[in-house]
Amino acid sequence: MNESNASPDAETVIEHVLEHIDQHIDQSLERLFGLLKIESISTDTAFQGECQKAAQWLVDELSGTGFDANVHQTPGHPMVVAKYHPAETRPHFLFYGHYDVQPVDPLSLWHRPPFEPAIEDTDNGRVIRGRGTADDKGQLMTFIEACRAWHAVTGSLPARITLFFEGEEESGSPSLIPFMEQHRELLTADLALVCDTGMWNADTPSITTMLRGMVGEELTITGPSRDLHSGLYGGPAMNPARVLTRILADLHDDQGRVTLPGFYDGVEPIPTEIKTQWDSLGFDGQAFLAEVDLDTPAGEKDYSVLEQMWARPTCEINGIDSGYTGEGFKTVLPSRAMCKISFRLVGQQDPDKIRQAFRDHVAERLPPDCTASYHSKDGSAATVMSLDDPAFDLARQALTDEWPNAAVFTGGGGSIPVVGHIKSILKMDSMLIGFGQDDDAIHSPNEKYNLQSFHKGIRSWARVLAALSD
Amino acid sequence: MNESNASPDAETVIEHVLEHIDQHIDQSLERLFGLLKIESISTDTAFQGECQKAAQWLVDELSGTGFDANVHQTPGHPMVVAKYHPAETRPHFLFYGHYDVQPVDPLSLWHRPPFEPAIEDTDNGRVIRGRGTADDKGQLMTFIEACRAWHAVTGSLPARITLFFEGEEESGSPSLIPFMEQHRELLTADLALVCDTGMWNADTPSITTMLRGMVGEELTITGPSRDLHSGLYGGPAMNPARVLTRILADLHDDQGRVTLPGFYDGVEPIPTEIKTQWDSLGFDGQAFLAEVDLDTPAGEKDYSVLEQMWARPTCEINGIDSGYTGEGFKTVLPSRAMCKISFRLVGQQDPDKIRQAFRDHVAERLPPDCTASYHSKDGSAATVMSLDDPAFDLARQALTDEWPNAAVFTGGGGSIPVVGHIKSILKMDSMLIGFGQDDDAIHSPNEKYNLQSFHKGIRSWARVLAALSD
Repeated sequence: MNESNASPDAETVIEHVLEHIDQHIDQSLERLFGLLKIESISTDTAFQGECQKAAQWLVDELSGTGFDANVHQTPGHPMVVAKYHPAETRPHFLFYGHYDVQPVDPLSLWHRPPFEPAIEDTDNGRVIRGRGTADDKGQLMTFIEACRAWHAVTGSLPARITLFFEGEEESGSPSLIPFMEQHRELLTADLALVCDTGMWNADTPSITTMLRGMVGEELTITGPSRDLHSGLYGGPAMNPARVLTRILADLHDDQGRVTLPGFYDGVEPIPTEIKTQWDSLGFDGQAFLAEVDLDTPAGEKDYSVLEQMWARPTCEINGIDSGYTGEGFKTVLPSRAMCKISFRLVGQQDPDKIRQAFRDHVAERLPPDCTASYHSKDGSAATVMSLDDPAFDLARQALTDEWPNAAVFTGGGGSIPVVGHIKSILKMDSMLIGFGQDDDAIHSPNEKYNLQSFHKGIRSWARVLAALSD
Repeated sequence: MNESNASPDAETVIEHVLEHIDQHIDQSLERLFGLLKIESISTDTAFQGECQKAAQWLVDELSGTGFDANVHQTPGHPMVVAKYHPAETRPHFLFYGHYDVQPVDPLSLWHRPPFEPAIEDTDNGRVIRGRGTADDKGQLMTFIEACRAWHAVTGSLPARITLFFEGEEESGSPSLIPFMEQHRELLTADLALVCDTGMWNADTPSITTMLRGMVGEELTITGPSRDLHSGLYGGPAMNPARVLTRILADLHDDQGRVTLPGFYDGVEPIPTEIKTQWDSLGFDGQAFLAEVDLDTPAGEKDYSVLEQMWARPTCEINGIDSGYTGEGFKTVLPSRAMCKISFRLVGQQDPDKIRQAFRDHVAERLPPDCTASYHSKDGSAATVMSLDDPAFDLARQALTDEWPNAAVFTGGGGSIPVVGHIKSILKMDSMLIGFGQDDDAIHSPNEKYNLQSFHKGIRSWARVLAALSD
């Protein structure tokens, strides 16, 4: 293809960009593999150097594509900000993604090393296997590769673009709010684009318009000053594991509702039009649960599986540890019992009030000679997008042009706290488009990203950029 | 001392034996250290070779002291049986101890390597520090060293003696019952002597006449077929940690009583005379709990701390593990939740019925799409000694002769299942004499054994052997 002969006509340009993407998909994959091999586990300080490496990798990678890219150090893992700001006035987008990944344990359940990615053939098509393929390295690379193709074909990009990558998304983003507050000018644009969500199904793209918020707490109950022999002390000595199980068991009633006083303040029924759209999606809750060997919805009675996931708040135990848990028996009466717990929030639920309600719940159940200590994960409220912005319909059409089925507006059960911060600090709305699938096993062993998600994801962003920049 | 001049008079003989013990205490300690350095952790298969090594060490050590000692292999860790069976008719004692030890985790809380024993000066006198010093290597060596001294002084032992050491006491003794059933003739004697218990206090020796039994269970609840993202699945997917905490929390009522139906069947009030003796011990329950930073007895209301420990049954959580428990947060909805739990039994409680009641309790609380699987630790009923045998009063006097205070009859909270098996399989009673202290930290980091317990323990056994063989 001779680029100099390309017509400036928008429709022709996008065709050439898509063709370029198809022709260079192997190189795109090679670049993605380079990023996937970096063990950027943000929650474990042992991998601090790997997070630095991932940030530098992005800067190096972007420097050749027209972006002015820089690593910004923080008290935690670094931020990467890259700017393409042409002289002419164009719409300005802030694209957000994260280069950090979840821990990989239990390692024994992976069928290949998590940081040695590979293409695998599966019954559901070809996939890219490895930690971070879907969450979020594969996703953020769809946008970078779309920009790269656009730049290769036209010598420019269709919009002002600021890329913003963080490395602490999987560990509570402690540096995010201070950084955004300090760099308001650098980061503010017309609209944020975020690629950290999924498709409705393998053929149906989705724009996520509702997201749950989150409050996380690590609670440690300490009883006796040391581990005791459960025979010698069992009976008179208070067992902190017994205290903890009481605290945790009391968090739900037998209807699946969370018992904390005031927990449901700010939780409203979803608007009828949204509920109608969700009902029309033909979601099979039974089949969704059957995929992971479950059959009975465990959330609040009287709500569909989709509502339990997208529109209802939850309380989940993410981890518990106490006493001896190795092979065989050890008749210990443990000194400590620890749990990690998270609440997913919807509507107007206030993260601070819910954290306080949980701590009150603990205090009420704490025997006088036990103590409770906390390690908090920052709270974030739920976010609900305003669909009045015409960009939502334009993007929906662009996605519909790329995929077999028309794009849909959906909710999301997971939390993407940055969306709340973009709203509160930068006063911007976000548009959430992602290409993950339900079976990607993010946060689990054998995480994967469909090869089609990656390839058509790049093409999708090229189309969305074209549509929003017209 | 010229042994050939020693009078055969019993009182003179014991004086010479005690003198020999005092003169050779450094060599006795050296031998104990040799055994302590062997990492014979029976519950962890990684230490299988060390258990073999400990058994062989005992055989080698005993072979020079008049005993005919042999290692007997089992499907698990080996047994050691050593015989001193002179031609003349003498009373016949079976001495039981165990050479295996508890795991050492958390290793970081030890102030010295657990298998590099040393003498340390403490505010409460000199102690031998290291894993197994008190439970049970230090204790079993008091008996061996008493025999060694007796043999060195007189060229013989005052009784027929069979030594019986197992290496699976800390891991449920899977080979013990089959071995005892297969070797009834080898092991049967007039009375069993067991050294795996403690003193009433540092100056007051004790003979334990009541022991609690035990039932152990490892329970694993499995929900979804894999770990899930708590955002995506939280709500509709049943969390097995939530199921487990409900199961465990429901095991106690708010009076500290265990709720399993029929749990208290066979639990009788202790006889008035025993209760009177216990009350006269002047035990300070408050001070006992304060030593481990507790102040409120956690067992059943209306029972003293001593009764809660010795005469009341319990249910304790020994370990819980589920989900992500490392540094930082991982928003996982775990596939599994596991606990290790143990019940201490008293009186006529039936271990099998209690195991079944627990499993019924679990089944009643198990959602239809979760499963429960079990890994059992063998159950043992409680044992209550008959004090009609005059040997109890003879031994009590022998101990009283050695220590500052008169010996007392006490109960024991821990389980020594072998005592039940000695009764049921060998039809013999046991006498439990031990020299442990409450602050020995057995099963915990920094386990120790008082140097005085070791030294006067050897002297005590020499006296008891003399008294029982007269």
